[in-house]
Amino acid sequence: MQYYVDGFRGGDPDVHPTAAGHRKPGDPLPEKVDVLIAGCGPAGLCMAAQMAQFPEFTTMIVEPKPGPMEKGQADGVNVRSMEMFQAFGFGEKVKRESYWVNQTNFWMPDPANPDAIRRVGRVQDVADDLSEMPHTLINQARIHELFLDVARKSPTRLEPDYGLKVADLTIDTTTDDHPVIVSLEYTEGPKAGQTTTVRANYVIGADGARSNVRTAIGGKLVGDAAHQAWGVMDILANTDFPDVRYKNLITSRKEGNILILPREGGYLFRMYVELDKLNPDERVSARNLNETHMIAAANRIMAPYTLDVKEVVWWSVYEIGHRITDRFDDVPDGETATRTPRVFTAGDACHTHSPKAGQGMNVSMGDTFNLGWKLGLVLRGRAPKALLHSYTTERREEARRLVETDHKWARIMSAPLGESELDGTDEPRFIQHFKLNGEFTAGLAVRYDESALTAAPTHQALATGEPIGKRFHSAPVVRAADAMAQQLGHVHDADGRFRVYIFAGADETSAYDLVTWLATDPASPILKHRQPGDDIDATIDVRTIVQERFDTIDLTAAPSATKPTKGKLGLQDHEKLFCIDPREGRNIYDLRGIDKEKGAVIIVRPDQYVGQILPIGDTAGLSAYFAGILL
Amino acid sequence: MQYYVDGFRGGDPDVHPTAAGHRKPGDPLPEKVDVLIAGCGPAGLCMAAQMAQFPEFTTMIVEPKPGPMEKGQADGVNVRSMEMFQAFGFGEKVKRESYWVNQTNFWMPDPANPDAIRRVGRVQDVADDLSEMPHTLINQARIHELFLDVARKSPTRLEPDYGLKVADLTIDTTTDDHPVIVSLEYTEGPKAGQTTTVRANYVIGADGARSNVRTAIGGKLVGDAAHQAWGVMDILANTDFPDVRYKNLITSRKEGNILILPREGGYLFRMYVELDKLNPDERVSARNLNETHMIAAANRIMAPYTLDVKEVVWWSVYEIGHRITDRFDDVPDGETATRTPRVFTAGDACHTHSPKAGQGMNVSMGDTFNLGWKLGLVLRGRAPKALLHSYTTERREEARRLVETDHKWARIMSAPLGESELDGTDEPRFIQHFKLNGEFTAGLAVRYDESALTAAPTHQALATGEPIGKRFHSAPVVRAADAMAQQLGHVHDADGRFRVYIFAGADETSAYDLVTWLATDPASPILKHRQPGDDIDATIDVRTIVQERFDTIDLTAAPSATKPTKGKLGLQDHEKLFCIDPREGRNIYDLRGIDKEKGAVIIVRPDQYVGQILPIGDTAGLSAYFAGILL
Repeated sequence: MQYYVDGFRGGDPDVHPTAAGHRKPGDPLPEKVDVLIAGCGPAGLCMAAQMAQFPEFTTMIVEPKPGPMEKGQADGVNVRSMEMFQAFGFGEKVKRESYWVNQTNFWMPDPANPDAIRRVGRVQDVADDLSEMPHTLINQARIHELFLDVARKSPTRLEPDYGLKVADLTIDTTTDDHPVIVSLEYTEGPKAGQTTTVRANYVIGADGARSNVRTAIGGKLVGDAAHQAWGVMDILANTDFPDVRYKNLITSRKEGNILILPREGGYLFRMYVELDKLNPDERVSARNLNETHMIAAANRIMAPYTLDVKEVVWWSVYEIGHRITDRFDDVPDGETATRTPRVFTAGDACHTHSPKAGQGMNVSMGDTFNLGWKLGLVLRGRAPKALLHSYTTERREEARRLVETDHKWARIMSAPLGESELDGTDEPRFIQHFKLNGEFTAGLAVRYDESALTAAPTHQALATGEPIGKRFHSAPVVRAADAMAQQLGHVHDADGRFRVYIFAGADETSAYDLVTWLATDPASPILKHRQPGDDIDATIDVRTIVQERFDTIDLTAAPSATKPTKGKLGLQDHEKLFCIDPREGRNIYDLRGIDKEKGAVIIVRPDQYVGQILPIGDTAGLSAYFAGILL
Repeated sequence: MQYYVDGFRGGDPDVHPTAAGHRKPGDPLPEKVDVLIAGCGPAGLCMAAQMAQFPEFTTMIVEPKPGPMEKGQADGVNVRSMEMFQAFGFGEKVKRESYWVNQTNFWMPDPANPDAIRRVGRVQDVADDLSEMPHTLINQARIHELFLDVARKSPTRLEPDYGLKVADLTIDTTTDDHPVIVSLEYTEGPKAGQTTTVRANYVIGADGARSNVRTAIGGKLVGDAAHQAWGVMDILANTDFPDVRYKNLITSRKEGNILILPREGGYLFRMYVELDKLNPDERVSARNLNETHMIAAANRIMAPYTLDVKEVVWWSVYEIGHRITDRFDDVPDGETATRTPRVFTAGDACHTHSPKAGQGMNVSMGDTFNLGWKLGLVLRGRAPKALLHSYTTERREEARRLVETDHKWARIMSAPLGESELDGTDEPRFIQHFKLNGEFTAGLAVRYDESALTAAPTHQALATGEPIGKRFHSAPVVRAADAMAQQLGHVHDADGRFRVYIFAGADETSAYDLVTWLATDPASPILKHRQPGDDIDATIDVRTIVQERFDTIDLTAAPSATKPTKGKLGLQDHEKLFCIDPREGRNIYDLRGIDKEKGAVIIVRPDQYVGQILPIGDTAGLSAYFAGILL
């Protein structure tokens, strides 16, 4: 990580210098804010952490509960979210604290003794080189804290306003000056039930499945009504079941299914227990199912193994629902050409899933990681407001694909086993499906359709392992200046900036020339989209990779543009130039199919998705990509 | 990391539940404490962090300065210290924030143009598999903060008392009840100059080269008086010197030498500049050397490269001194049989070094990491007070070796280049010396002599790569319960506990039998040294390693002693059993020379040094080792 560019400053480098003009805890509510976020769930907090990187704007986040979440609900962090956590600076922390899902084990009735279960399969949960980050499990409350910590240590020292909810909102489409009039309602204390008004330029409704923001913009959740009850419990328990520290899918002959998810800290684990089918008109709450039923069911399903529960930390019973909203923003379908969005929904407010595929929290964070940088650049006047339409386009399609896959998975998990599966003739469908869905479960199947942000794959052949529209797949490199072996993708912080990776071909001169052109030519998109006072890499960060080793490269031959000066002091940045990692199997050109002869330019969006791939000489293409997005 | 063993508790797992009976900030000074630490430098803070793991005792740490250090002084963290940081829980944090010394480069006059320097060599700074941790550079103040953070989050919520110094102390040898009478002096505020008295059971004088604690027990620093002045500066600067982000030793023809040490954050770096020889009676302060001289000297030495300094963050001029005290504790040499120590010196209070070998801070922390667990076990009544003699025995010898090597290194660095070095006939002596000293510089040359703590190498052949008396050399394993690939050494937290690693031979039955014997047999040292209420692993933590893969091991065959129950809830601990890492080159038996046929038992002291190696069947040897240390 880089710091001290504006001079030495002691202390924790994650604590940024305070920016002026922001509310402190205890200050009265503001009358106007740039961004109002409803809800301190994963979507809302990811948005808050992202907006905290744009300290010149005021952000407010409200949450009806009296304080931060303490336990419960989601716990699965897929590798894509881990990559995002890395970009927010807390990936290492989660790696240290969490349970890592290395393998998923499958148990089924033993044909020789159908009342007992036996292990029938084992699948490596994250395939080799699918990502440099692991799939982890950790309680959602801890993820909340880590996002809150990013916000709290940011220049704005952003803290949520608890005990407040968005009750309603209206949009004054006649003005551009804080057009959203938000009615906030106190949920506790002496003012409980009273409302107050805040005007916002933008509102993000991350206020859950019963979202008032969604309702206010006329949206509904539609889709599969749920008819199946699952129980979930987080427990501290002893057992003779040998795989209790593995993720397991256990299918019994008659008693239903269990999903076991070990959790952080080495003792805790979660169990999802299939309770039984519900009639269409039954409500979960009416069933009087509780943790005692779950423990009994688990013992039946796991027989001959037993479960001795010492503490039930948290439990819940719910129905599976796969629903999606028709409104990701406030602009009616017919008006996208004439109106830009002011209000967005994100997370459970726009899509709900089965918890068992572990996608809910991840997709919710993915929503606001998609929206955050766009809103930041629009507020900053770097991009036109029309860029905000792409949030709905990209995330609605993604939500649709997700709900569909998720629905299929839930059906497969609950379906009774066929004879050929039970007797071992065929590999059980859920193992087959699990293997096929590795990329989906990892959160890596997301592929945005062609648009201004995501170019046509004209030059995809130059980097076959980095599909345009998918997330930039990191690989090892060695920093030229100091022989530091690292992941190239880890230079991409969640700071709202584009990255341009210039992979030199056989002759690195053309790559070096391109770096110099980008830094100095008036036609360069960097200079065209630069504003006074901007560092050279304020919006577009250029990194160059050459096919040499750190101990053979001639550092004096690299142009000065690979060491641009930055910050108040005008200091050289030595972290723009990389060599290949010479160790066996770690050459990024081989790993990502980059053309060693011609090289490639890969443009990566601020949310880490590949936006464009170009030949090194294609300066016009480079200019065109950014001209299509930035002002 | 493991947590929730006593039940779920939300929040940061590094923040431990508060223990009762400890002072809060603002509380009056105590009259009595168990442990009083003088000085908030690396030695004092490492001691504080270690004592914080023994929350049933009161620890006080005083520092004459008004608050925590903000910048300056030491910055080198060798791999041994990084391993210790890992044990304290902040290794990952330092890895993320710090500069990693991957290579050290050497520059000398170019024979073709003797007024210009050229790179003549490059040495990999940390040899492959010397340690799993890197050699890093980061400012000492940040290390202080990280130790303070451990203390602050510990059950005692320990915070230093700033503005207080130990002025003097006396020892009442007639009592065992807080026999050390300490005179504390206020260094600032309205009470400045006033003194107050605290009685302590033990005092650690980590109060620097001018230690009052050392003086009070009659100790002096003796050794080489220094006659050579070096300047050091931490700067933010631009340069055309291509290796500025490498550690460099630059030797010029006539202008002296420079050591460049890049620092955390990517911009800052340190320079040590040889100023010139001093006359024996000259004092540094009289020379009026300042940062301007240093910058000018650096520019001369680095020619033809130039240095454009934008900010001098910190600078100092000092003489090299290699000195050592005759008193590591208060017991006169002739009285060790009849008296046990109550007062100790540590860090600069007992040895000072050249800063350029980067050992000072590391050895200081090593002192108190050696002392901390011993004092903890003695206070807890688990070990006899005589154990405390081993601090002096072990650390004095270590300090002697260090000062000797350090002295040699300083002389080699300052010696003029010979003709055969200048013309390239011979490899320069400092490169030769640097290569030879890799283990020393890494802090891994420490080898304690044979004693009750460090057995004779009778069975060394069972684990040739883990020399008795040296630090336990970690290697990869895979946790059996959940296929988690990890470093075996990372199970060894800085918690004052011994580790017993049982490496199974070809037949794992005997290893399993030993685990069961240790957990259940009345003759087992675990049961003999266990006190009521202790978890099974409260003092001796047993871990078993088998030569199987995670996906072939039969977990049901492992005895229940490999899953002991612990804590208030009696929960199974699943992290006691390990498999080999099946990947190429990662088998711990191969890497550490462990006998695959017979296996081995390796006992590791709480400070991570190998104490004993035994055959698996040697239960008598196991009992004898612990009987020699514990009560």
